[in-house]
This record gives sequence, structure tokens and C-alpha cells, in this order.
Amino acid sequence: MPEANPPQPLTPLVRPVPVRADGPSLEDNTADLDRLRNAIQGQLPDARPLEIPFCRIVPLSRLFRRAGFAGVALVNDLPGRWVLADFVAALPLTLPAMALDLGTTHLEANLVDLLTGRVMASAAAENSQIPYGADILSRIHHATSARRQMREVEPSYVDPGLLTLQQSIIACINGLAAKLAVAGGTDAGALRALSVSGNTAMVHFLLGLDPFHICREPYIPMVNMIEPMEGRELGLNLHPAAPVWIMPSIGSYFGGDLISGILASGLAQSEEVRMLIDVGTNAEVVLGNKEWLIACAGAAGPALEGGVARMGMRAAPGAIESVAIDPETYAIAVHTIEGAPARGICGSGLIDLVAALYLAGMVDIRGKFKDPGREKDPARAAFMGERLVTRGEQRAFKVVAASDAGAVHDVLLEQIDLDAMIRSKAAMYAILSTLISQVGLNFTDLAEICVAGAFGNHIKPQSAITLGMLPDLDPSVYRAIGNSSLQGAQAVLLARSSRQECLDVVSKITYIELNVNQEFMIQFSGSRFIPHTDGSLFPSVPRLAEGKE
Amino acid sequence: MPEANPPQPLTPLVRPVPVRADGPSLEDNTADLDRLRNAIQGQLPDARPLEIPFCRIVPLSRLFRRAGFAGVALVNDLPGRWVLADFVAALPLTLPAMALDLGTTHLEANLVDLLTGRVMASAAAENSQIPYGADILSRIHHATSARRQMREVEPSYVDPGLLTLQQSIIACINGLAAKLAVAGGTDAGALRALSVSGNTAMVHFLLGLDPFHICREPYIPMVNMIEPMEGRELGLNLHPAAPVWIMPSIGSYFGGDLISGILASGLAQSEEVRMLIDVGTNAEVVLGNKEWLIACAGAAGPALEGGVARMGMRAAPGAIESVAIDPETYAIAVHTIEGAPARGICGSGLIDLVAALYLAGMVDIRGKFKDPGREKDPARAAFMGERLVTRGEQRAFKVVAASDAGAVHDVLLEQIDLDAMIRSKAAMYAILSTLISQVGLNFTDLAEICVAGAFGNHIKPQSAITLGMLPDLDPSVYRAIGNSSLQGAQAVLLARSSRQECLDVVSKITYIELNVNQEFMIQFSGSRFIPHTDGSLFPSVPRLAEGKE
Repeated sequence: MPEANPPQPLTPLVRPVPVRADGPSLEDNTADLDRLRNAIQGQLPDARPLEIPFCRIVPLSRLFRRAGFAGVALVNDLPGRWVLADFVAALPLTLPAMALDLGTTHLEANLVDLLTGRVMASAAAENSQIPYGADILSRIHHATSARRQMREVEPSYVDPGLLTLQQSIIACINGLAAKLAVAGGTDAGALRALSVSGNTAMVHFLLGLDPFHICREPYIPMVNMIEPMEGRELGLNLHPAAPVWIMPSIGSYFGGDLISGILASGLAQSEEVRMLIDVGTNAEVVLGNKEWLIACAGAAGPALEGGVARMGMRAAPGAIESVAIDPETYAIAVHTIEGAPARGICGSGLIDLVAALYLAGMVDIRGKFKDPGREKDPARAAFMGERLVTRGEQRAFKVVAASDAGAVHDVLLEQIDLDAMIRSKAAMYAILSTLISQVGLNFTDLAEICVAGAFGNHIKPQSAITLGMLPDLDPSVYRAIGNSSLQGAQAVLLARSSRQECLDVVSKITYIELNVNQEFMIQFSGSRFIPHTDGSLFPSVPRLAEGKE
Repeated sequence: MPEANPPQPLTPLVRPVPVRADGPSLEDNTADLDRLRNAIQGQLPDARPLEIPFCRIVPLSRLFRRAGFAGVALVNDLPGRWVLADFVAALPLTLPAMALDLGTTHLEANLVDLLTGRVMASAAAENSQIPYGADILSRIHHATSARRQMREVEPSYVDPGLLTLQQSIIACINGLAAKLAVAGGTDAGALRALSVSGNTAMVHFLLGLDPFHICREPYIPMVNMIEPMEGRELGLNLHPAAPVWIMPSIGSYFGGDLISGILASGLAQSEEVRMLIDVGTNAEVVLGNKEWLIACAGAAGPALEGGVARMGMRAAPGAIESVAIDPETYAIAVHTIEGAPARGICGSGLIDLVAALYLAGMVDIRGKFKDPGREKDPARAAFMGERLVTRGEQRAFKVVAASDAGAVHDVLLEQIDLDAMIRSKAAMYAILSTLISQVGLNFTDLAEICVAGAFGNHIKPQSAITLGMLPDLDPSVYRAIGNSSLQGAQAVLLARSSRQECLDVVSKITYIELNVNQEFMIQFSGSRFIPHTDGSLFPSVPRLAEGKE
């Protein structure tokens, strides 16, 4: 566990500043806005300049005068400056703001009260850009369709495809904001701030930034470190002066969602060395402590996220999330999320399944289904005969039959899915090994491995260890931290220290490009076996498999 | 003369910053905009934060990349921050910007090269708001027509009358910018900055700020100290990232044009005590040196500016600007501006005329035309008989007859004009006396009196002294400084020290409200005679008048 911090007063992104000034007179003819500025400056905790956006001069002057020159200024606490956003005669009971996890497939959001830190409501929505491309690469393709045909692009050119993606996601966020507002008993125009945590490409789509170079070597985003803008600049239906805090990214394949993960895991505050693993479209891994941080990302995800296997699906109701095979009877026990009728298998279920099949002796160390005809154990032979079917020229394992209670259809694990799964788990272990060896440490030096997201919530560490996907450590070393992207977004709404941590992390982190890393390729080869070509790395696995071979 | 400053390198409002960075690679995947930001930050002379406006991210990233990651960044040098405005592959030959004197009746502007300080072109235009009100008060009336009928005004409410005034003046400035651009061989979209020097109400009209309280006791502007905004926020056709620097004001009746005057006169840099007099609609006066500044304003102007006398007119071609009456022959010599046929009389001509009439013994110390019937000197009696006519029940002096060479019509000085003139000159002297006595000094302590504007260019100090309008000092103490409003606007475009001086002056200056000042009323009474009830204040006048009474 990260060190517990003592409770601190909230230092929200929008800070209420009580203000009281004498009214104007012939002896004191200070202008209304100057009077307000002077009164606020005396109350701010530091000497950062106080900016007043031009378009706010008229309403702020009038609000201050109408309130009798006393009330509460709402001041945005931004890097290097304060920005005066609003003035109210009296502080409202809540000061709602929205924290957003801007995922490639799903958006999740919390309505948070900036005065207390309380979560007032939660909501989620499917990413409305999916019709334009299920994955990031196809969306980048869509967002650069016209631009790619042009020899030269004008500095302010906007590709119609990019505009479509931007408008789509803005509408989606506005919808979420409206939903949150209703649930929180307010309206979207009262939302005082928005923080957004998403991968680099999603942030480009949201902000209308050209993603052209993101997917072309050497993979350069237009910008990683983005100063907060106002919601109205994006067409967001929030309070007109609401700041939008975009979590910074590190590179094209290491986005603000990971910075959020670092915040949520406490990695950059930790005395001991910890690791953070986030499996999405890519596997993204961070290693470090309060002194140093090193990170990399690689294509390990799809099979694990349920995006590749034919029966794969996201961790959602009806997804098989865990599988057990009795070592004596070969009875198979399958659990679906929320106990719903089985529709497919999610990443954690897949890992459980393959680990169980390996331990039950039905999959060999290369990740291939064994030949039932060569099986000597009669019980196992019977089980294999019942469950192993042929699809085309390949074997497949029937996890659930359509005839089983409530199953929608057969759920099969085909050899091709198994192969993809092995590549993914090999990539994952290679990533982790490469990273730890870069800093001259061993896995046993790790105080904790945080696993983010739905994957982290559902995965059984021992199954992943059995496959050789995660290092062979005591399962208690692994900690599921949930939706850390959303948690990080929420943290920056509430704490100046978290906002500062964002900026510190970006300047502190070292990013390793795996595409040009020799060691990664070597590690990857050895990892393509269950659990590994070097069995000494996984001492716990033979003990589990004992007596089953 | 103010101390000469040693020549300094220009520190313009928009600063060119040469930038060179390595291109991106797999080893250095810094995003384009972050690469640009990093490269600029290393070249800036101080640690103020560098802001990049959200809407400039796309064009700046593309321009930097297209230029091969080397070129010149154009960075706006603003209070408390740098703002990245543009990036060019190579520095252009000139970097044009516009300095504007936003007068109530006329606009004058210079096109200035920010690289060299050279004036590339000049232009002027009549203030397009005149159809909505000849003077400031009637324009404020127009700008608050609808608002005044409403019980309560919404914070963001805009009066249609104010909007009309704003749009009118924006169009007028855009026209001037286009004219300057043509004259300077460029186009308005290439203008990199605008500085505006105008009175407080004109600035409110330009920015769409509610002027409602400006003309109501205690005379409070909406704002005096205005942070620079971008031209596009106002609808100005300049470069999209051009900063607009508004000279700050001190109060409703002490505007940014006076701050410009302080800059142009060198008052706030002076070791010795100096005075600045600016006669416009009001007389505005500043007294001080590098240590302290005190200022006031009062309604002394109209008669002096040519706005009240029936034959009064601005200092323009055809305006009588000087008058002499031969003490022996009473021959009258009249000069018009540019020698054009006489059409009226401007402020300096009026002062000359009344001083000459007084010295010639035709106007008494109360400022009344004498009775020709009581005149004993036959030459003077003949002259008076020829020139003094009756209009209604009042006498009038025929300065120029329609029969005179080229005169358009009779130009008459009526008693009513003379009375207004005496009130104005009395107000002026009372303002100056009140101000100097506030700080315990005498006029003889002044190293210099700077007289701004067309009034300063045309006035003969001795005539004003004869009338008792200006203190009886050696005429060499007076210095005409021309259009100091425009000069100040130009100074802030070119020098950081001038921009800083604006802010320093505002925080340093003490403004005296004459409406509540007892001493002013006493001084005013004594000043309603020519030259004054206390003749010892004007020793030079009896010497001039010697032998003429």
C-alpha cells in the first residue's frame, strides 16, 4: 500500500475566495473590476498573477456591484496563474465539477463536489466515435482522410473527419454532463470544471488536434502538455468559465490515462519501488518510486482485453470471467459477470481458462491443444473427447455449450485465439522483464504491483503467473486499483498537489520505446512458452501442475 | 527637457525569439508543440510562464514542423506572462504594429515597425461615433438608452446602443488599419499588435464595457486596468494573435490618453518637478517627478478647444490660430492654419485674440467689451467703432469681415463667447493653483510645463499668461509636446520599460477630485478676472499693458 497521507484541506481546481471591499465613493473612485481584483489578490495564498478573461469583465463587474462588493470569488487555480472565473453573493451548497475517463470504447464520469470532495453522481456511456472506427488506428485514419490526400496542409486546416470525431465526442461528453447534472440535482451550466483523462489520440480527437504523426514513426503527438482551456472553447455546455484540465501525456502511446494511473496508484509518492500495469488496447507499464519513474508501452493488450479472440468480449455482464477445472474429475466451473447467460469470454476469463487447461494437461507448453488420441489418462481423454472439437483444420475447446443453462450459443476457444493469447502474454512478460532489467532490479524488489482497470479487478494473479504472463510473486503483491484513469481525473479536480504531480511526473518520467529495443525481442522469444523457457523464473507453477502431467 | 536616456535595444510588445531544435526521433519523441515550447523557454530573458492559447496549438505545431523545427517565434511580452503568438521560418523585414490615439472627435494612428521603431505610415479619421453623440456624455446616454429603462440588468446584458457604438468604432479602427497597411505596403492581417490610448469612456465604448456609472457620482468606471486581449476578441482585422494593449486609466475623468501623456512628457522619469497640461474636453493636469505624481481634471476645456464659442472650431485649416493688434495703429493681423480662408477661431486663436483685446484696452478686467462711447483715445475709439458690432443685446467683436480677403463669412467674438472663455481660463488657473498648493510648491518650482495636443502646438504662452490662464513664468518653461496620446501608445509598442511605466504610474498617482475640493472653488473666484484679482501673481502683464489704459 502507498503511504497514507495525512488529511489535508481541499485545494480544488476552482477555489472559493471570500471577498469583502468598501463600496466606491468620491474619495475612493477605484473601478469596479479593479476593486474586485484588489480584494481577491489580498486573499490568495501566493503571488501568481491573477488573470481576468476579457469576456468576463462585464459580468464580473456587475455581479460584484450587485452583491454590494462582498461575496465569494471563484478563482481557477492553474499552473503559473490564477484566473478569475466567477463571483457569487454567497457560496452555494455544492460546487459541482466533472471528472472524465475518456476511454477508447467507454466514457466514465463522476460528478464531484469541489467543496467536500464527495462524489455526487456517476455515469457512463459508450464512446460515440466507435461508428467511425472501433480502434484508435482506424479513427486516426478517419480523422486524416482528406488531409492525407493533400500535398501541403495550411497551418489552420481542419480535416472534416477530425471535425466529425471531435463534434461527436463533444456531444457525447455534453450528454454525460447533462446526465450527471440531473443525477446530482443541478444543471450542466453549473458544472465549474472538467478534468479529462484519456489516451493521447483520444485527447487529440477531443481537442481537434491533428493526429497524423501519432501513428507514423517516430510517433510524435502534436502536443503532450496542454494548458487548461475554457469549456466554451471546445463547445462544452459547462459553466462558461469552467476550466478543462487535460491530463498530460508522455508520448503517442503513453497517454494521460496513465498519468492518472500513476496518481491513483501513489507510485510517484512511494518510498519503495512499485509497478503499475494498465492493460487496454496496449499494455502500459510504469516502474518507479518518488525518486524516479520509467515507463513503456507495447501491443500486449488485444487478446487480454477480449478484443481479439473470436469469443472475446469486454468485461461486461455475460462475459465469462473465471474458469476452474477440477484436477481430479475434470469438472469445469464457469462464472459469468453478474451471473448472466454466457455470451463470450473476457480477458481475465481467458487467462483463467488457459491456465486451467495448461494445469489440466490439455494445453502444452507451446500453447497448443494436445491430441486427445495420444492421451493416456482415461478421465482426461474422456473430457478432451467431450470438449475438444474441430473447427476447420484447427482444434477448439468448448467452454460452454449452447445447451448449457442459459448460454446464448457455444462459447469456443479456438487454437487461433490461444495463439493470440500466448503472443499477448509473452509480450506482457517481455515488457515487464525489459523494464525491470533497465533499472538493474529484479521483480522480487517490488513492494507492489498495481493492476489498473477492469482487467485488474477481474484477473486472478495466480492464473496469470501460471501462464508466465505476470512474474511469479506472492499474489498479495498484486493490487487491483480499479478505474485509475477516472480516479486520477478526480484527484486533479480536488488537490493542487495532484495537479502539480501531473506536471512533475511528465518531467520526471523516462519513456522507453520498445520498437527499437533489442532486449525486448529476446525476452519476447523466451516468453512464448508456458510459463517460460526458463522454468526457474516460475517456481510456483510446477508445484501447481504437480501430478497432472 | 526630460533627461535623455541612453539608447536601448528595443523590447517590443511582440518579441522575435530565434529558435532551433533537433527534429523528433525514436530516441526523442517530444511532441511538436512541447518541443517548440522548450526551445523558446531557453531563449526568454526571464521566468515568466509561457502561455500558448488553445486555438493556436494546431497552426503553431504545423508551422514549427514545416520550418524544420527552426525559425523565429513571435512572443507577446505581457505583464506577468509571455504568450506565444506565431512562428515564422524567417524573420520578415518589418514587424508592423499600430499605435492609436482614440480621441473623442478624431482618431490618429501610426504604423510602427517593431523591429526598428521606425514609423512606416500615419493616418487619421474622424471618430465614427460622432453621429451618436458629439460629446462623451451624449454618447454615454446613447450607450445606456435601453439599460436605463430596466430595473435590473443581467450580468452579461449588452445595451444595443453600446453595441452600436462599439461596432462603429471597431469598423473605424479596421478602416484606419487598412489605410495604414496600404500606406506601409502590407495588409492589416499582418499587423502584429495594437496599442490604444483614449479616455476612459472611449475605452469603454471600444471594449463594450458598460459606461453607466462613469457619469454618475461617484463616477466609477467598470475597469481602469485592463489586461491585453487579442484583436480577434474585439473583431479587429489584425493578425489573429495580435495583442491589444489598452493604456490604463485612473478614473472616469482621467484616462489612458493622460497616462500616455505622462509617458511622452517624461514626467514620471524626471528628477525635477514638472507639470503636464492636456486640454481636451476637460483640462487634465498632472504634477510630479520620478518620486510622486498628483493629478486632477476639470471642465476647463470646451471654450479653449473651440467647442463652445459660436465661431469656435478645432485647430484645422481655416481656423484663426493667432491674432495681433498693433498697440499704436490698432491694425489687426490674423493668421489662419495653413493660410486657408478664415472659417472660425480655434482655442489658441481665441486666447491670442482676447489677450490682444485686453492689452489694447478694449476688454476690461472682468472680460467685458468696453463701451466705445466712453473711449477717450480717438484711434482706439475709431477702431472700436469699426469693429464692435451689436448682436441682440450684446456687443461682439468682428475679427474678420466677410469682405476680407478670402473670408468665408464674418468671424465674430460675441460677449457670450468671451464669458465662456473667461470661465474656462479661470477654471484652468484654479486647477493649476489647487494642484500646486496641494503639494506645498509654487509655480516657480517647476522645471517645465508640458502642454499636450494641438492646443499645446498652437498656443502662445505669453497670451495665456496675459489672460491669467497659465502661471506667469518665463515662456521658455512651456514646452509643446504634440500628440502625446499617440506618442505614449507608440512607446508601449516598443519598450518594455514604457509598458512597466504605465502600470507603475497607475499605482503611484494620486487623483484629486475637484468636485469636492473647497480650495478649487476659492481659486476659481479669484481667477475670473484678467489676469487675476491678485495682480502680484502676474507681474509681467502690467508691463505689457503699460501705457495702453
